[in-house]
Parts: sequence; structure tokens; C-alpha cells
Amino acid sequence: MTDSQSSKSRPKVVVLGAGFAGLNAVKTLGSAHVDVTIIDRNNHHTFHPLLYQVALAVLSPGDIAQPIRSILSNHNNVEVLMEEACQIDVVAQTVALKTGIKLPYDFLIIATGSTHSYFGKEEWAGVAPGLKTIEDATEIRRRVLLAYELAERQMVETGSHAPLKFVIIGGGPTGVELAGAISDIANLYMLRDFRHIDTSSTEVCILEGSTSILAAYPEELRQKAVQQLQALGVQVRTGFHVTDVRPGYVMVGSERIESACTLWAAGVQGSPLGRMLGLDVDKRGRVPVDKFLNPKGLPNVFVCGDLAYLEQDGNAIPGVAQPAMQMGVYAGRRIKHLVQALEVVKNFPGFRYFDKGDIATIGRKAAVAKILWPFRANWSGLLAWLTWMGVHIFFLIGFRNRVSVFASWARTYIRLRDGVRLIVGSRELPGWDSLSKETMPAPEPIDQAFAAESK
Amino acid sequence: MTDSQSSKSRPKVVVLGAGFAGLNAVKTLGSAHVDVTIIDRNNHHTFHPLLYQVALAVLSPGDIAQPIRSILSNHNNVEVLMEEACQIDVVAQTVALKTGIKLPYDFLIIATGSTHSYFGKEEWAGVAPGLKTIEDATEIRRRVLLAYELAERQMVETGSHAPLKFVIIGGGPTGVELAGAISDIANLYMLRDFRHIDTSSTEVCILEGSTSILAAYPEELRQKAVQQLQALGVQVRTGFHVTDVRPGYVMVGSERIESACTLWAAGVQGSPLGRMLGLDVDKRGRVPVDKFLNPKGLPNVFVCGDLAYLEQDGNAIPGVAQPAMQMGVYAGRRIKHLVQALEVVKNFPGFRYFDKGDIATIGRKAAVAKILWPFRANWSGLLAWLTWMGVHIFFLIGFRNRVSVFASWARTYIRLRDGVRLIVGSRELPGWDSLSKETMPAPEPIDQAFAAESK
Repeated sequence: MTDSQSSKSRPKVVVLGAGFAGLNAVKTLGSAHVDVTIIDRNNHHTFHPLLYQVALAVLSPGDIAQPIRSILSNHNNVEVLMEEACQIDVVAQTVALKTGIKLPYDFLIIATGSTHSYFGKEEWAGVAPGLKTIEDATEIRRRVLLAYELAERQMVETGSHAPLKFVIIGGGPTGVELAGAISDIANLYMLRDFRHIDTSSTEVCILEGSTSILAAYPEELRQKAVQQLQALGVQVRTGFHVTDVRPGYVMVGSERIESACTLWAAGVQGSPLGRMLGLDVDKRGRVPVDKFLNPKGLPNVFVCGDLAYLEQDGNAIPGVAQPAMQMGVYAGRRIKHLVQALEVVKNFPGFRYFDKGDIATIGRKAAVAKILWPFRANWSGLLAWLTWMGVHIFFLIGFRNRVSVFASWARTYIRLRDGVRLIVGSRELPGWDSLSKETMPAPEPIDQAFAAESK
Repeated sequence: MTDSQSSKSRPKVVVLGAGFAGLNAVKTLGSAHVDVTIIDRNNHHTFHPLLYQVALAVLSPGDIAQPIRSILSNHNNVEVLMEEACQIDVVAQTVALKTGIKLPYDFLIIATGSTHSYFGKEEWAGVAPGLKTIEDATEIRRRVLLAYELAERQMVETGSHAPLKFVIIGGGPTGVELAGAISDIANLYMLRDFRHIDTSSTEVCILEGSTSILAAYPEELRQKAVQQLQALGVQVRTGFHVTDVRPGYVMVGSERIESACTLWAAGVQGSPLGRMLGLDVDKRGRVPVDKFLNPKGLPNVFVCGDLAYLEQDGNAIPGVAQPAMQMGVYAGRRIKHLVQALEVVKNFPGFRYFDKGDIATIGRKAAVAKILWPFRANWSGLLAWLTWMGVHIFFLIGFRNRVSVFASWARTYIRLRDGVRLIVGSRELPGWDSLSKETMPAPEPIDQAFAAESK
């Protein structure tokens, strides 16, 4: 912050999570008149769509992660905190951090994403890791590669090895990508790495609970995907509901499926921060938001990315990178507009009377004028009187009036007569009852004359 | 209103009073996206600074008044109602009219000005009329001219007449202007109108309670004004507190001052509408406002003109035309800005997910792509896979990452080997306890390698 003076009155935006949504929100706010604090447990942003390539040892963690600080280093109004939020107070408008600090906010963006869901079977987590973080990816890599190392060692020590079978639970994009990649490294890249085992004997199996893998894709592409997976030797088994996950095998009803390594790609649930707003969440822990991405009744809180539940054209917007980025940009832009609106209200200058002076006229050709603008002067007499005339003609509303008043004045002041000395209304003066009404002269038809002139 | 569709959602502005403040507010709002209703008891705007000339028969009422409708006829978003407001509900945001109609508002401008104040002696009103309306002016004219007519008739009937003495209570601008004008018409314009009385025998007397007339003017000009008034034959008596006003005379303490016609120019008080806000008013019935012209706690209500009490540089802004016009313009401009701010908030479009499509990769050279933008297509195989590569390289954050990932892919996919198949962390797989830890090969120095690559 270069200008600490002006930053004091700036609205504070707190962004929780530096995923696609959070990062895009902050970038959008990078040029706005707000102070942004982005908070993430990690010091890096992860490019999730390529996480499976880290898991399958094609890429390094450093290839798909970038320190948040370096991504946002050009935005002077942005502060990055490697921290964890543990409480949100929407009334006091503060976010409590694990260190105990309470961070005040004017606008809050919650974009803490989602984590794996084992549908209540948390004990499966240790056996079948999911793929959400760099740590998950390196854990999966460890398990996959270790399975080959162990098989090689078994061959050396015993002359045979347990089947190299990988079971992937869940046939969404992540499951399909993991399956294809395992098949690739087994059949292509590692072929010459081992002396005793044949890595091409690897079996990969996708267990999908619903009737089809890649449910979000058109039927044509789903079939193509199955064909392509089968060409790689991947078994695709749909309609298989996993009932138990144990070290070395998976149960589907009474069927036991051997597994050298089980991976979880079946379900996700919203980050626990979603529940901290004190609002209802859906069964997957997502926060329902309106079209402005605000949870009910909280117009200065935005929930973006996987954590948000928003229907569009009858379907929930999916929890993938594309909508997360778009939501982040949207929240940033909306906050910019709201801040602009607030500034209009707050920064509008107060009323100040600009006194140009005063003129009081005192009969014909006499007046006093206290002139304050465009110059300062105290005038009296004819000059003041002419100024008075000019000012009043100028400000009189209506062209006809101006001409009429100017003509009246000219006539009256020059010829010293005329004027409109018509008596209208009652012909009695209060207290002048010494003269009886009966002796008054007959009225002239002045009522009509007045009616005509004031028309 | 040409566009009834769009006008429905427009904010409603109700303006009470078509004086300088109200009219200027409406003109300022004339081009804004609001619907304005201006309400006045009269169908005309009065140019108050020249009212005394109507009173003294120099100008006609029609010269200084203009129908409100014709002033505002060019503004299609403005409606004029000849009506009277009798109640304001700031919670429901409605103005109740005498006819029983309740008019809803989003913004309210109260500019109903001021009326005479007889300091609690309302019985004086009938004897000494003030000068606030066209009706007041014609009443004063009637009384002044009738005084001469009666004197002429007294002369004809009795050979003498009561002294033509006019007493003006109050030495502010209105009092001075009335005094000068009466003196002028008596000494100049009417000289040849009467056959029996000598109009130049008219005496005019100003009774001012404070130590000086024209208190708002510098000392130099006040003295000049007294000199000019005296040159016209006007008596200026300062420090005279009127204790009674009766038909034919005025009492100042025990002194009885004869008066053929008494005029009131001493005090004003705010319009009764000011009290209807339910807020404290000052002793003159004015509504204290903040620098935005809002009464306390009512940011969408503006009080402008004589009815507003606002101090500037230690002095109350005077109840004259200039500040009233400026306040009206200010309130109009502020409402325009507030409306703009509201529009930003209200009209900002909701979030819509723009789905460009989905791509899932299935190993090397195989993928399925549901493309929705920039064209629609379902691709599978190599084309889909190349698209997937391009999209991911493009969206990957960080130039270094892009180069690095591209290089990794090129190496891996073309040479079918390499990759980063490093096992990091524990060397045990859950469930693979058939092999004892002791027989595992010594670890390579991969921890350092990983640390280096993820740096």
C-alpha cells in the first residue's frame, strides 16, 4: 500500500481460498479502490486439472503450482496471508483466523472449494486416497509407484507377485483421467524400467455407481470414452456400488475385487467453511447462493466455485475450474460496482451555500448591494439599483415575464406613471368604518381586468 | 411518460412546494431516470423578490408568476399536482394528500418554505398583512390603494382626511423595499391621479426592533440605506418593539403611532410540514439538516430552502432565494447520484455460467471433448487430446510452468519415458505388510530431488 492515507477509508475485501475462484476474484479487484486480503492454508495455487499428472508422475508438483504471492505480486492493494480461517461472524463482519486474529471485512468472498466425500465412510480415506491437493497427488504417486516396486521385489524374493490391479472408484473426469494415465505409464513409459515384472500386465478398473461414466458428456462421447479406455485395457464397470474398501481389495456387494492400489474419485463435499455462515447447506455441504452469488440475506458475502450451489437452466453449475473462474471474476466485478456505488454516496460533497451577495432596493434609482461575486464590492445608489434590475430580470422565470416586467419598469420609471393600481377584492379597510359602505362609488369592472392580466 | 415499461421500476421522487428550491430540484432531476411528482397548493411559481412590486402596483401578478406546468412542460418525467400535503410517513415512505391519496416516494424533497410569524400574536395578522404570496401582495395593494381612495373620499365629503401614514413593521429587505416603493408611488407615480388629496403628504415609517435595518449588510451599506430612505421621506425608527397592532394604529410601549395601513415584514416561520417529520424543529419551525440537506436519520428526505436550518461558517444560511435555488439544485443532484448508485446495485446482471465445453483426457492421444464455444462439436481421439493439451497449457498459471509442462509433455509423450516417477514419503503401502521393512532397498536421495523440483 503506497498511500496509507487513502487506504484507510477503503473498503476491505477478504478472500478465503486461492483456488480458481479466489484468485480470479482478487485479480479482478487488483485495480479497484479496495484493500484485499487473500487467505489460504497453502502458499501456492494449484492447477487442479493437471493434478492427476502429478499423481501419475508425468509432471512435478512445481509444474502445476505457483506461489500465491508471486501470482499477485503486481497488485499493490492485495495482501496474501498463509493462514486458516476458522470462524465467520457475518454480523460483526469479521473472519477469525486460527492464530486468533480477527480480520474485519466489508466484503467477503468464500472460495474454499471442496474436499473428498466418502459418504460417511471416513475409514475408507486411508485406503483409497482422493485427489484434491498436491499432497494427495504425491500420496497417490507414492502408492502407485510403490505397488510396482513391491511387485518387483516380490518377484525377486518369491518368483511371483500379486496382480498389479488398480481400482479407481468413480467414473467422472478424474477417475477416467487417472485410469488412462495409469494405463499409459504401465504400458508405455515404465516398460523398460523393471527387470522382473511386466508392467504391461497392469490391470486398471473403473467402478462407477451410476449407469455411465462421464455423465456430463453426450451419449456419443461417453461411448467413445469407453472404447478408448477399453483400447488401453481399462475395465469400465458401471452400476457397481462399492460397499467396502479394504487394504488389498474392494467389495461390491458380495463380490471381492482385488486391488493393489485403490484410488477415490467418487464424491466431493463443500469445505467446512460453508457451514460457518450459519445458513442451510445442501447435502454435499454446498452453500445455496442467489444469482449475485450471495447466500441468503448476506449481500456483502460471496460464495464462489465448488462451494457454491447455484442452478442454471435447471441444472446445478458443476464444480469444475471454468465456472469457478467465472464466479471469481463476477464476484470481483460486483464488489467493484458496489464499492463505486458506496463511494458515490460517501464521497458526494456536502451542500455549501455560495453567497454571491445581496441587493435590497430602496425605491427608484436607490438600492444597496453587497456584492461577493464575481468581485467584492459594496455599492449603493443608481449602480446598485441597475444591478438589482438586471439580476431580477435575469432570474425571473419565463421569457414573457421578462419582457413584460422590463416594459413595465421602463414605462413606470421613465414616464413616472402607469403601473397596475387596480384594487381587487373587498373595498373595505379594517378599521376604516367611519365611512359607510353606501356612500362608496360604484365599482369599475376591474375584476375582469385582473382576471385577464393574470391569465 | 413515453416508456411505461421502464418507468415502473424508476425511483419515485416527490417534491413538496414549487418555490425556488422545489423548482430547481425538479429541473435538475428533469433528465434523470426518476419519476418526479411536484405538489403545490398553487398552480403557479411566484418570483418572491418582486412580490412587493405587485403589492405596490408596479407589476401585475401575472408578471412575476408562471404556471408550474408550463415551466416544467419539457420534462416528460415530471408530473405536477395542484394539491396539498397533510401528512408524511417516513417509515412507509408515503405523503398523504388532502384528497386522501397516499403518494409513495423513494426520495422526498420538502421545500414548502415559510410563512409570516406574528410571534404568537395571530390576531395581528388581519390588521398587518405580510407579504409571502400573490394573494398577500394583492391584499396589500388593495389596502394601500384603498387608503388613498378613502382619503380622497374623506376630502370630498368632509374637507379633510386622516393622515396618509403607512407603518411597516420590520426593517429587513422586504420592509425596506415596501417602504421605498410606497414612497415612490406616493411621491412620483400617483401625484396627478387624485384631485383633492396630495399624495406626497404620505408618511412612511419603518419600525425595526433591532438596532439597525438590513442587518445582513455591512455597516457602510446600512448607513447608505438609511440615508436613501430618509431622502425618500421614510422615517426609520430602530429599537422599536411593537407591542400591539390595531386597526388605525400601532403601539410601541405606551407610544401610539397612527397608521392608515400597517404592513408586516418582521418575522417568518417554517411551513407546518416541517413538523410532520416528527423531528425537532428550531424556534422558527425550521428543520435542522446535515450537510446533505437530510434531516437526522432520513437520508432519502431532503429539506430545502427557507424550511431548512443549516449553519455555515457559524451562521445560519439565510432564508432567501439564492440559497433556496442552490439547495434545490443540490438535492436534485444528490438524488441523481444516489439513484445511479442504486441502479448499479439493482441493475447489475446476475451471474451466468458461460459453459465453453468440457474435455476429459483418457491417456495418451485419447480424449473426449464436448465443445460449446466458439463452435459446437463433439470430438474424441487425437483432435480432442490436442485441444486438451492446448487449453491446459493456455490456462496454466505462470510462464515458467507453461514452458516446463510443455517440455515435460513433449519429452514424455514423444520419447515414451522420463516423467518424474519419484516416490516421496513413507515406503509402505497399506495392507502390504507381507514384506518386512528390513528387506527394503536403501532409499535414494530423492527427498532432496523433490525439494529442488518443487522449489
